[in-house]
Order: sequence, then structure tokens, then C-alpha cells
Amino acid sequence: MQKKPWSGRFSRETEDEVEEFTESISVDKRLYKYDIEGSKAHARMLHRIGVLNRRELNLLLKGLEEIRKEIESGKFLFTVELEDIHMNIERRLIEKIGPVGEKLHTGRSRNDQVVLDMRLYMRDVIHDMAEKISNLQDALIEKARAHMDVIMPGFTHLQHAQPIIFSHHLLAYWEMLDRDKERLEDSLKRVNILPLGSGALAGTSYNIDRRYLARVLGFEKISANSMDAVSDRDFILEFLSHCAILAMHLSRFSEDLIIWSSQEFSFIELPDEFCTGSSMMPQKKNPDILELIRGKSGRLYGNLVALLTTMKGLPLSYNRDMQEDKMPLFDTVDTIGSILDLFPSIIRGMIVNKENMMAAAYKGYMWATDMADYLVRKGVPFRSAHEITGRIVSHCIELGKDVYDLRLSELKGFSEKFDRDIYRILKPEKSVELRNIYGGTGKRAILKRLREIERNRK
Amino acid sequence: MQKKPWSGRFSRETEDEVEEFTESISVDKRLYKYDIEGSKAHARMLHRIGVLNRRELNLLLKGLEEIRKEIESGKFLFTVELEDIHMNIERRLIEKIGPVGEKLHTGRSRNDQVVLDMRLYMRDVIHDMAEKISNLQDALIEKARAHMDVIMPGFTHLQHAQPIIFSHHLLAYWEMLDRDKERLEDSLKRVNILPLGSGALAGTSYNIDRRYLARVLGFEKISANSMDAVSDRDFILEFLSHCAILAMHLSRFSEDLIIWSSQEFSFIELPDEFCTGSSMMPQKKNPDILELIRGKSGRLYGNLVALLTTMKGLPLSYNRDMQEDKMPLFDTVDTIGSILDLFPSIIRGMIVNKENMMAAAYKGYMWATDMADYLVRKGVPFRSAHEITGRIVSHCIELGKDVYDLRLSELKGFSEKFDRDIYRILKPEKSVELRNIYGGTGKRAILKRLREIERNRK
Amino acid sequence: MQKKPWSGRFSRETEDEVEEFTESISVDKRLYKYDIEGSKAHARMLHRIGVLNRRELNLLLKGLEEIRKEIESGKFLFTVELEDIHMNIERRLIEKIGPVGEKLHTGRSRNDQVVLDMRLYMRDVIHDMAEKISNLQDALIEKARAHMDVIMPGFTHLQHAQPIIFSHHLLAYWEMLDRDKERLEDSLKRVNILPLGSGALAGTSYNIDRRYLARVLGFEKISANSMDAVSDRDFILEFLSHCAILAMHLSRFSEDLIIWSSQEFSFIELPDEFCTGSSMMPQKKNPDILELIRGKSGRLYGNLVALLTTMKGLPLSYNRDMQEDKMPLFDTVDTIGSILDLFPSIIRGMIVNKENMMAAAYKGYMWATDMADYLVRKGVPFRSAHEITGRIVSHCIELGKDVYDLRLSELKGFSEKFDRDIYRILKPEKSVELRNIYGGTGKRAILKRLREIERNRK
Amino acid sequence: MQKKPWSGRFSRETEDEVEEFTESISVDKRLYKYDIEGSKAHARMLHRIGVLNRRELNLLLKGLEEIRKEIESGKFLFTVELEDIHMNIERRLIEKIGPVGEKLHTGRSRNDQVVLDMRLYMRDVIHDMAEKISNLQDALIEKARAHMDVIMPGFTHLQHAQPIIFSHHLLAYWEMLDRDKERLEDSLKRVNILPLGSGALAGTSYNIDRRYLARVLGFEKISANSMDAVSDRDFILEFLSHCAILAMHLSRFSEDLIIWSSQEFSFIELPDEFCTGSSMMPQKKNPDILELIRGKSGRLYGNLVALLTTMKGLPLSYNRDMQEDKMPLFDTVDTIGSILDLFPSIIRGMIVNKENMMAAAYKGYMWATDMADYLVRKGVPFRSAHEITGRIVSHCIELGKDVYDLRLSELKGFSEKFDRDIYRILKPEKSVELRNIYGGTGKRAILKRLREIERNRK
Repeated sequence: MQKKPWSGRFSRETEDEVEEFTESISVDKRLYKYDIEGSKAHARMLHRIGVLNRRELNLLLKGLEEIRKEIESGKFLFTVELEDIHMNIERRLIEKIGPVGEKLHTGRSRNDQVVLDMRLYMRDVIHDMAEKISNLQDALIEKARAHMDVIMPGFTHLQHAQPIIFSHHLLAYWEMLDRDKERLEDSLKRVNILPLGSGALAGTSYNIDRRYLARVLGFEKISANSMDAVSDRDFILEFLSHCAILAMHLSRFSEDLIIWSSQEFSFIELPDEFCTGSSMMPQKKNPDILELIRGKSGRLYGNLVALLTTMKGLPLSYNRDMQEDKMPLFDTVDTIGSILDLFPSIIRGMIVNKENMMAAAYKGYMWATDMADYLVRKGVPFRSAHEITGRIVSHCIELGKDVYDLRLSELKGFSEKFDRDIYRILKPEKSVELRNIYGGTGKRAILKRLREIERNRK
Repeated sequence: MQKKPWSGRFSRETEDEVEEFTESISVDKRLYKYDIEGSKAHARMLHRIGVLNRRELNLLLKGLEEIRKEIESGKFLFTVELEDIHMNIERRLIEKIGPVGEKLHTGRSRNDQVVLDMRLYMRDVIHDMAEKISNLQDALIEKARAHMDVIMPGFTHLQHAQPIIFSHHLLAYWEMLDRDKERLEDSLKRVNILPLGSGALAGTSYNIDRRYLARVLGFEKISANSMDAVSDRDFILEFLSHCAILAMHLSRFSEDLIIWSSQEFSFIELPDEFCTGSSMMPQKKNPDILELIRGKSGRLYGNLVALLTTMKGLPLSYNRDMQEDKMPLFDTVDTIGSILDLFPSIIRGMIVNKENMMAAAYKGYMWATDMADYLVRKGVPFRSAHEITGRIVSHCIELGKDVYDLRLSELKGFSEKFDRDIYRILKPEKSVELRNIYGGTGKRAILKRLREIERNRK
Repeated sequence: MQKKPWSGRFSRETEDEVEEFTESISVDKRLYKYDIEGSKAHARMLHRIGVLNRRELNLLLKGLEEIRKEIESGKFLFTVELEDIHMNIERRLIEKIGPVGEKLHTGRSRNDQVVLDMRLYMRDVIHDMAEKISNLQDALIEKARAHMDVIMPGFTHLQHAQPIIFSHHLLAYWEMLDRDKERLEDSLKRVNILPLGSGALAGTSYNIDRRYLARVLGFEKISANSMDAVSDRDFILEFLSHCAILAMHLSRFSEDLIIWSSQEFSFIELPDEFCTGSSMMPQKKNPDILELIRGKSGRLYGNLVALLTTMKGLPLSYNRDMQEDKMPLFDTVDTIGSILDLFPSIIRGMIVNKENMMAAAYKGYMWATDMADYLVRKGVPFRSAHEITGRIVSHCIELGKDVYDLRLSELKGFSEKFDRDIYRILKPEKSVELRNIYGGTGKRAILKRLREIERNRK
Repeated sequence: MQKKPWSGRFSRETEDEVEEFTESISVDKRLYKYDIEGSKAHARMLHRIGVLNRRELNLLLKGLEEIRKEIESGKFLFTVELEDIHMNIERRLIEKIGPVGEKLHTGRSRNDQVVLDMRLYMRDVIHDMAEKISNLQDALIEKARAHMDVIMPGFTHLQHAQPIIFSHHLLAYWEMLDRDKERLEDSLKRVNILPLGSGALAGTSYNIDRRYLARVLGFEKISANSMDAVSDRDFILEFLSHCAILAMHLSRFSEDLIIWSSQEFSFIELPDEFCTGSSMMPQKKNPDILELIRGKSGRLYGNLVALLTTMKGLPLSYNRDMQEDKMPLFDTVDTIGSILDLFPSIIRGMIVNKENMMAAAYKGYMWATDMADYLVRKGVPFRSAHEITGRIVSHCIELGKDVYDLRLSELKGFSEKFDRDIYRILKPEKSVELRNIYGGTGKRAILKRLREIERNRK
């Protein structure tokens, strides 16, 4: 068994069971790249301030680089006894280059080292995720552009409300995703901060050069309070909550698509490769991927709750409870990542049943709002116009007719203001064109927004 | 690439990325034992109702048994393409024994099969967990028996409230754990139900013998509605919530022990093997295990929230979202399991600093309640006695004295009812002995409860 | 300003802002009935053990009864300064009957008193809720009985899977609700326990008669550890989690009904009085009540998370944090209560569009399972039968036909096993009748279950 | 009974029970100010585009202003029948000024109106909360400034780790709060967006002037997609998650202060006015306010989970479920608000027991890190220095001594590198002065940070 780095004070050996319970290496080994990057920068800084000579620096850099290669080629032997990624790498370094390896830990502690690794990791993750969101947004733009002539019912309460252009519905998700991306990008300013120099909690007594470290590692700021630096995890919680909100958006989008894929709606058909069948029912083509995306919102909410709970009521500064930040973080990163990888192809691949959508757009008396507005324009006060129209809808339902079947005289029975022109405006095609206000579902309005978006794209 | 069991209807192949996203085999392979157990029972039943002849039955049983051994010896090749544990085993079975293997799925669907596996698994898990809770309870009993003479401050609001016997504090957790166990055992009646026969959702058209299956598999009931059987996961949610409550109890116990281990309290010393040191601070002996136990309550709450979220608002019957039940369930089982494995040794190994506890029991004016009760017994109304005592405490604080330093005449200045006997009753040792009411902290009361517990132990 | 019951020790007055922050009277006054009931029982017990004489007992009982009436007639003046319901009542009692009122608190503390009130309250709540669940179940039975001839598509993944009888779908919820009720009833054994005698935390030094109290107040057990009794709230958490699971069930039922009410499904029509309209769109008839029920699952999950979080990591014994148990509890009780009050009328009032359901049952190739089973019965191995059927489904889709349009020769092109009898079994009406296995969707199976249910009804 | 605004289409009246279930007026009436502000701006815009003439505009403005006064003076009669704040105000307006009142709703819907009100409200709330956070930060600055000479143990794992200056601990919370504030301020850009013009979901057919509205109402942007505008609540979720993180910080701070207030720590004494006593134990002085703050983190987490759950899986666009956004939002605003109101006084009022802190700083062998660093400076590799020091700590524990009692020769037995100067550096006062690196606990480092903060203060 390996000797623990802190074994000097202890009289009995730690038992295996305990080792397994406390280890984080099985989870945090994915941080290896950042741990090595941080260690290299730390070594360079130690050389700069005279703690290491040139030879020692080179030995360290070479050793660290070799370890990186060992890990990436699968040759590195991770051991649970060494608890975490930091100790696994350090021990191997000492094995390789001898006592010089021990000097690397000068002026730092695992408490600031682990926060460093996490911050480097999250910076990458956030950039990566922002890009994936952009990809999904691009798929929405393409699909929207290609379906500007598809009219469908817009729903409120899952009831037909007003006709909309299909692209408008898609672009609603574009906007949500854009805010998700913006939130992540805003959070970077609270992530991209150098914690090294904080030591275990009180700052280090070595005169390490924090500005140099920040510059080398690309950090915008350096942390201003060592106790805060080692004991808060709010930057992870912020990320988990942004991802939970993103997951909420994606669960809604999935729900829309699942409902549209039902036999009753038949608004879209999903590409075969994103559906699966049934072991018992040969006819089934199930929107499994979308169901899983919808279902995985649970996992993403759960990860947020997990870390919020863990952090609740902990005294300062570092407590081991905080090791529990990694599992929810990594799981959220992986889950969101794979969802964002798949979603663009679903969007691109889905077939839009234009005829079914249009047929549906004629159902549900969606002309009612426009009829009421018609009356208002003719001088009827809004609430009265609303009520008259309501009565016409009831009348249609009773007779099993639609407005197109009613004669003008019948309409005039409800209000003298009706005229022959009413028939023209009640079509879905006409209805959407009444809504070219900025942000509305009119074709010109949508095209305007598309141009704006495309102009701003980086 | 393997052909999917439902590939007949599909024109394009599923892509790798999709496969990885939808597969559950990496998670559900731990159900293999239950899947095989269920399949054997199903095969026997199919023989019984004449679907299989004796030779076919034997082939199937032998094949399934061989597969079990292959899995347990690590020789079985799980493939992601086959999605889940059910298909991995079935495909291997057909490979081994030919077309007879295909007959096994007669009269069942993956929808009822997976619920069967989960119910068999959870039945085992619940029994196992109940036993682990009992082990922890036993450790508490031992420790309580061994420390009946240790008096300490009882806390409310983390302030000294009234003296208690240390064992009483430990046994409070015994009671909590007992309810946790009781909850799990109560839940068994909602777990131990046979779902087979429910088919995909509508029941099977084969005349399978459900009562026979229940008998063979040890189920108490058979499910009464096929749609309910395949589409609810409330039995898992119930388990996750019972575990969250258990985790809450364990987080509180951990908090108590962590606080008691602080230099300031020094009420207990934790065994070395359950502590770890610091990479930077050589003197540290940190209660890491307890911190992790406290912290892991987050994970356990998160798992509950995850599945509650996933199940929210799903239409009947089965939806793929439900595949997300396994990760939180398995993680909760593993996490609670390892906590319960470790906790008894922590209890048994911790050293109780009797002197420090007793010294603390003399601090904080904990005699105040007894002094007030003394006055009540001498005829002072409760609220007045309370107020007089409050004034004496203030007096002590001002003078920096304790009641033992006050002369009788001083006390009489607050109330004429005081007499020399007051000094006798104000000691912690005396205070606890005033509380031998059932459930109280008096020695006799505790011993009585211990005897009750030991008598009821199975 | 009123003097606090614990003001003796304090040198400065509590400020208004603090008072408002710490008060619970605005929330816990609804416990008044239970507080008075508990106090009456306590008074009777104090008389029985000689602490109160007959005259004092009568004064107390009369005073308490008068206070009850004052509260119920709206004449009682609750004051925030007195913090909670217990002090409000006690102070009023002393005002009314003088110093005898002070004696009432003999042998108890607010810590055990509040737990007593909560347990009495929850016992009532659980009985009440069980009854409300039964009412909803009854509505399901009625509706199921009345619609035994309605056939509809059974869904998995919101795709047509197999035909079912509408009543079968309704009764799936009956089963879920039954488990919800069972869970609540099981929890009673952890609720119905007398805490009085536990004092603040250590037990009382008065020789109070706990068994007598339990008998008078109808408790089945008395608490066995005073620290546990005053410091745990697991019985509330258990209730909140059972309610969260119930809310999950109701959110699913609501989702089903909302989807069925869409123009595309048109399976049901909701009664007008449970829908609302739109201020802008006169034609809208929105299933608002069901949406709110679905949405309120959020509140119910949130309440569970709230108390789980609050209790996490609290040291023993009582901490003021626990006062935060009431808001989530009361909100959950009210929310579930009003949902359960409304739901039966929605079920009873909804109109079932039998024709639409049947028409849908003919869509989606739901005969595929039965066709595969047909082939299996003719000797084709299950997986092959599945694949053949899948190919026939594809064939139908390509040609835009259904199976009823295919000639026998076409079918024989897929498998020689097909015979003229195949056409008979592929109708939805026939399909459900193949599933009379216990728990299945066949008419006889459902009627059998209905009889069972009715026989067991209390 | 009042007639509903959408009653035209309905044949039966809504029942009372339903009304109570669906109403939001009891909750959303607090939005009255924003509803009126929005209506005034809308009226002005309608005048500008010619829908209203000058007289009509004046009537509307006057009517709205009168209604504001009626509400603020308590004379306004809110009725549940009118469901929400919007309808209550509109109906009253029509009562007051006749049919002109009906025109106000031209070009808007309740769907965009409610989002408008929420955004105006949240903008105010966020500014207000940022100010309250600043107040708490100021209290920390003051207290930190006043206690620059107080040295205490810095804790990790609730174990003595390294000496720190008390102010450093306080300022760690300053930093956390600053990020909380920054998060809220960042979120403003997603809050401060005009939704009017979105109509029910599709945009309005009136040519309303959105840019003018935005200017009048102080919005930075106008929403770019009407469906997104009426159907997302991510801006509320973002707020709730920022508040949950803030609550986490405050729960930790409370925990620190509660632990420091225990008899065992006695690091601080809380001001009487923020503590309460016990009804049974006259000596108690309980940190109730801090416990409630810690406990209320539960409520704040719960509110976040509530709305996340509610929004999960909702199809576009508006669904009534979303009405459930208000309760969690308002409760979070109120709870955080009152906590932030109280906390500064707690900080300002608490008495710091400098002697106890310093005495504690001498305990727990906190010199160990500095001793190891000493050895490193003398050329011993870091890990070896760590181990030697660990052995000296063990030696001290065994002998019951501290390092100050060890002779140099004893130390040299562990390492020849020790010299007489070692004794000088091992004092806590010396230790903190070794940590004047930026962000460290040295006095100069802290003062530097204080100056920075004060310089940046607005």
C-alpha cells in the first residue's frame, strides 16, 4: 500500500472500505489535463521567483508532460489509495524525477489546487457548451428559413389559439437558447478567476507571483480572499442552475415534438434514426430520443438540488462535503453535451407535414381574435367585440358549422357592423399577415428577425 | 452491427451516437441476476401452460444458467447496440440454443419485464438495507450500554439546555433509524407485486399463469391493472424518499459528531482510520468520512428530485423517460449502502471524552429548569418560577459566578422559597435522575428502553 | 407590548422586525383546535396526578373552551408579540382565569407541545385526505362502469400501441390512488404517537401520566426517547413525500386529460365549469383547472425539498429552523385538498367522445401485436413473427393502406402461415377481448377487477 | 356574481370552488402598481397611434390613477370572481369611466400584460435586493475594520487549520455577497425587456408602437418573438436560482455564527434583541434569528424546485400552469428581503470575544504548516517537511505538550534543520503576518483589499 501524503500524524492505517468511500480519483481523473496545465504554470512561476532552478523546472515540465502522455495513452495506473488526481499525478512525478517532484507543491495546497483545476475545466466546458448551443440554434435557423410558408395552429393551453407560421414556433426556441448561452457567458466572469495563492485557506507564506500565474493560465482576475477562494462552490451552482434552465427549455421543445409526432397530430415525422421500435409491438416508431431528453431534465434538476443541499449550512472554510461537487457537475456536463449533440440532427431530419398543419390551422375557430379585432376597428368596444365573437363561436359549435358556412345575414344578427369583407380576413393565411409587428408571427416580421440574427452571428 | 429486435419496420439504421444516448446496458446490467431469475420462472410457466415442451424448457434453463455464469465470470460481452440487459441476454440465449430462445419472450414485453427485474431487485435491496440499518442500530446499543455513566449537556439551538446521559443522545438516533427501517418494510407491500402478464400495456393475449409465476418468484400479490403496472414508478419514488429521510437522519448524526470532534468541544475522538489528513497542514485530523456522509445527503435528495421530475406530467402508459429511473435508484442504493457499512465502525471506534462532557455539563446554567421546577414544587406558579430563575441566571452572568457560588441568602433575595436542599438538586448527575419518566434521560428510563429494544430484536 | 414568557434573562427588548421574522402565529394559528385539545387532556392528567385540584381543573377546562369559542367566532385577538399559538392561548387563559392558568404548563415545554399539536393535526389531515382520495376513486369507478364499451388506443410513447377499453385507462389511476392512500395509512403508525412528557428535550421531572394522556388523546404509542421526540420531523417529511408522489400521479392524469381535450385528439370534452376562456381569444375553452393541477405538482415537490433542506445537517435536539416545517406542510395540505375536492367532478362531468376514440383505435396499425401473436400461435418463433409483422406495417405505410385493404395473397407473400381468419382478429374490438387475463384490458377482466374493488370497499 | 370577460362562449357558470382554485388575485394583487404603470404607458401609446383621442386618454389616466389611490388607501374591493389583478383593475376602470375603459385592452392580451407586470416588478425587486446586499456588505466592512487585531483559528473540516484574522473570515462573506449581487445585476439584461405587442402568443394585429412603450417604461430591449415572450419564465427561474445560491451563502454564515455562539466556542455573543429564550429553560439565549435564516434556505431552494418542476415539459406557448410562478417568486422576494434587513444589525451588534479567539488560536497545533514551510525554506523537500512536522505533532499529542514546551534538542531529534529562530515564527500573530500575499489573511493584505473595496464603492 502506498503511504499517504499526510500519514505522519496517524497511528493506524486507513482501511480499504474507507479508502473507497473517500476516494475521488474515479471521478476526478477527467481533470488530469487541467491539473497538469496548472502544475506546469505553477512550476514556471516557482522558477521565476527563484524556488526552482532551470534544471529543476525542465525536469518538472518534462515529467508532467510524460505523465500527460501516459494518461492519454491509457498507460497510467490510477490508484484509489492516492485518493485523487492531484496525488496520483504528484506521486508518479516523484517516481519519475525524484525529490524535485516534491518541490512542486511549494506554495500551494490541495484546497486551492482543486479549485484551480475546476475553474480551468469549467472555462473549457462553458465555451464548448456555448458552441453546441449555437449549433442547435443554427439548425433552427435553417429549418425556419426552409419552412416560411408552413402555417399551423399556435397553441395556448394546448388548444388552438391563433394561426402562426411554423418557423415562428421554432424561432421561439432560438430566443430561449440564446438567453441560455448568454447566461453561461455571463457566468464566465465568476469562473475565470485564479485561486492559486490561497493555500489551504489562509493564503500562502511563499511569495508566489499570482499575476504571472493568472497571465500564463489566461485568468482575468485573481481571487481576493483566500478563505472564500477555497470554500465556495457558487460558480458550479450557477452553472448547474443555468443548465437546469436550459434543460427545462429542451424538455418543452421535446414535449412539443413528441405531441406533434402523435398519430392524432401528425404534424411532423421524426427521422427513423432518432426513433426506436418495440420488442412486442412491430408497428411502433417511438420518439425515444426526445423522451429521454425530456426525462433527463430530471437528472439535471437533481444535480442542482444535490449540490445546493450539500453546500447548505457548511461552516467555513473547506469541508470534505465539497468533494461531492464533482459527480453532479460532470453528469450535467455529459448529459447536456450529448443532448446538444443530438438535437440539431433531429431538427434537420424531421419531416414537416405541411398539409396536416394547414388543415389544423382551419380548425378551432382561430379566426375569433381577428373577428373581434375587426369589430373593434369598426368601433365596437374591445370587451363587447370579444363577447359577440364568443357568441358566434358558440353558435357555430351548436350547429356544427364553421364561420365560413355562415351567411352575412346570420353574422349581422350578432352585430350590424359585419360586412362582406369579414370573410376575407378570417383565413389563417390572412391572420398571420396581420401580425407583422416586430416579434410577431407575420412573414415579414420573421424574416426581419432572421436577418437580424444572421447579421449578429459571429 | 447487430440487428435490432424491432428493425422490421425501419428503413435506416440507428446511428452510433443515438445508440449511446439511448442505451441503458451500462447501467442496467447489474439487473442481470433478476432478469435471468425472471426468465427462468417465465420459462417454467410457459412449459406449465404448454407453450414449451420439456426439452425446450431444459434448453432454456440451461442456457440461462450458462449466461449467468458467463456474466459472473466476466466472460459475457455486453454490447451497447443491444440497448439493455434484456436484449443482451436474449440475443446471447438465441446464439447459444437457437430458435427456442426466441420463444422465451412469448407472452411478455420489455415493458413488464423491466418492471419485473426492478421489483425483484428492490425486494433484495430493501431486505439488505434493513439489515444494514439493524447493524448500525446494534452499534448504537453497544455504545449506549457501555457509556451509561457519561453525562453531557443536552443541546437545543446548539446551546446547553439540560444535562443528559450520552447514551440517551445515541439512542435518539436508534429510534430514528427504527422508523427508517419500518418505512422501508412497509413499502415492501407495494414492491412485492408481480407485473408479468401486463405485456406492453394491455395485458397479454397468451393464457399465462400469473399466480404460478407469483408463487415461483415469491411475490405476495399480482398487479391488477396492466397499464398501471408498466407505467408507474411510484414504488421507486417511495424508496428514494425513504432513503432521503434516512440520509437526513445520518446528516444530522454526522453533524453532531463533527461538532463534538472540534477542538472546542472535544467531546469525542474519532478513530484514526475514519479520518484523513491534509496535504498542507501536517497536524490535521479531519472527520472526512462524516463530512462525506453529511454531504452525500445532497446526492440522495437530488436522486429523489430527479425521478420526481422525470415522472411529472407523463401521459400513460410507458414512456422512454422512465428509463431514467435506474441511475438515481442505483446511485442511492450504492451511496446509502456504503454509508451504512461504515457508520457502525465509526460508532464503535469513537473514543468518548467523559471528563470533557461532564465538565461541559456544569456550564451554561443548565440547572435553571430544575431550579424553576423546585420553586413550582414549593408553590410558585410555573411562569413566575421561570422568571425568578431567569433573573438568577442574569445575576450569575453579571457576577461571573455560577449558582454553586451563591449563598442561600442571595438566593432568598430572589425568592423566599429557596432552602438549603436547593444545592443538592442542581448538579447534572442529579438532574438526569429526575427524568426517569418513560422516554426520559434518567438512567433507569434508558435501561428500560434498552431492555425493551433487546427483547424485541429479531 | 406584552412581556415575553422568557424575558427574565434578557436585558433589551426584542425589536419589532425581529418579532415579525420569528413569529409563527400567522401560520400556526390553524393549530388552535389541537392546542386546546392537547391542553385539556394535559389539564385532566395534571388533576389525575394531583397537580391540580378539581376547581383548578374546571377553571382551566372552562377557560380553554371559552378561548376555543372566541377563536371560532373571530373574537380572539392574536398578537405577533406572543410569537405562536401556544403562547397566545396561554396568555389569554391567564388573563381570563388568573394564576391557575400558569399551572397548565407544568410538566411540558413548547418543544413537546408543538409536536403534540402537529401530530394531532396530521392525524386528522391524513384521515381526511384518505377520504378525499376515496371520493376520487369512486368517481373513477362510476365513470369506468358507465363506459365499458368505449374502445380507444392505448398509448406508449404517446404513440398508438394496442387497443384498450377506456375504463381500463381510468382504473389504472384507481390503482395508483389506492397505493397513495395505503402509503398515507401506513404512515399513521409513525404519526399517531404521544410526545408529551418529553419536555424541552430530556423528559420532564414531573411524574406525568403518559399512558393516560395517550388514551385520552387517542394515541397508539408513546414516544420512547425524549430527544428524538422533540427534534425529528420525519413524520412530516414522510407525509410531504407521499403527497409529492400523489401529485405526480395527478399531474399525469391531468396531462392525459389535457391532451385528450386538444382539437387533434378530441377524445373528451371537459365540463364548461372546469374550463376558462381567454381575454383575447373568444373561442378558447381552456382546461385551466387541469393545467393548474399539473402545475401545482411543482409546489408540492418544492415543499418536500424545502423541509428536506431545512432538516439537513441540524444537530440535535430542537433547533429553531424546524419552525419552517409548518409553511410547506400547510401549503401541501391545502393544495392537495383543493385538488382532490375538484377532481371527482371533472371526472364525472367530462364527456367521452366514443366515436372519436374508436376511430382512433383503428389507426396506427395497432393490430400488429395481435398479428405477430397469430403467427407465433401458428408456430413462427416470436422474434421472427415480430419482424414479419414489422415488414407488413412498412408495406402498409408505403402504400398508404391499412391491413384491412390487403388481400390474403399479399399477406401470404410475407408468411405462408396467414389464413383467412387473420382478418377477424385484427379489429380493436377483438383485440381487447384477447386480453382477459387478470389485470388485462379485456371486458371480463375489467369487470372482475371492478367487482373486487367494490367488494373491498369499506 | 360578476360576468367573466370571456363568458360569451360558455353555457354554464363557473362554480365557486373552481373560482377559488383558479384565482390569483390573492397573490398577484401586489402587482397593482406595475399593472397600472403598464396600463398608463399603454394608454399613452394608444393615443399616440390614434386609437384613443386626448379626452379618452385623460379619462383613462385619471381613472387608473384613482384606482391606484383606492388600492393604496385600502378602499379597493378585490374580488375573486375577477380572477386576477388585471381584470380587477380593468373592471373597476370601466365602472368608473364607462366604455372608454374597454378600449384600454386594445392590442394587448392578459398573456403579454402579466409578463409586463412581472418584468416591471422584478426590475424593482432586483434593484432593491442589490441595495440590501450592499447594506450587509457595508456592515461587514465596518466590523472588519474594527477588528483588524483579532486573531482566531481558521477552520477546515471544523478543525483548527491555520490562524487567521477575524476580519478575513468576515470579508470572505463580503466576496460571496458581491458575486450574488453581480449575478442579480447580470440577470437584469434578461429581465428588462418589453413584452407588450406579443398579444396572446402571435403578436398583435394593431400597429402598436413598441419602441415608444419601451422608452416610456424604461426597457432596454423589446422582445423578438411573441411566442417566446408569453411562454417563458426563465427570467424568474434565473432569479430564484440566484436567490437560492445567496441563501446558501447566508446559511453558511449563520452556521458559523451559531457555532461561534455555543458555550464551547464562545467566540462571539449575539445581541439580545436577535435571540429568544425558552418557555421551559430560563437560562437559554438562543440564536433563533440565525437558525431561521439557516432554515429558510429550505424554503428558497423549494421555491426554485417548485417553478423548475412546473415549467418542465410544458408545450408552447402559454399554459395556465405558469400562474404558479408567483407564489414561489413572491415568497422568495419576501424571505430574502427580511433576512437581508435583519442581518446587518446582527453583524453590527455581535460582540467579539477577542481573548477566547486568541486562546483558541494557540490550540490545535496550527503552527504545523509554518513549521513545515520553515523546513522547506531550509532545504527540506516539501513532502518530507510535511512528514517531519506530522511526527512532531504526534509527539506533542502523546506527551500532552505543545511545541512551545519542546526544547530545541528535542526538535533537532526530528530534523537537524531546526534552529532557535523556529520559536519565533510559530505564534499565531506571526503566522498571519506571513500571509500578506494578495488575498491572504495578513493584516496588510486585508487592509489593501478593504481599500480596494472602498474605492470601488459607488
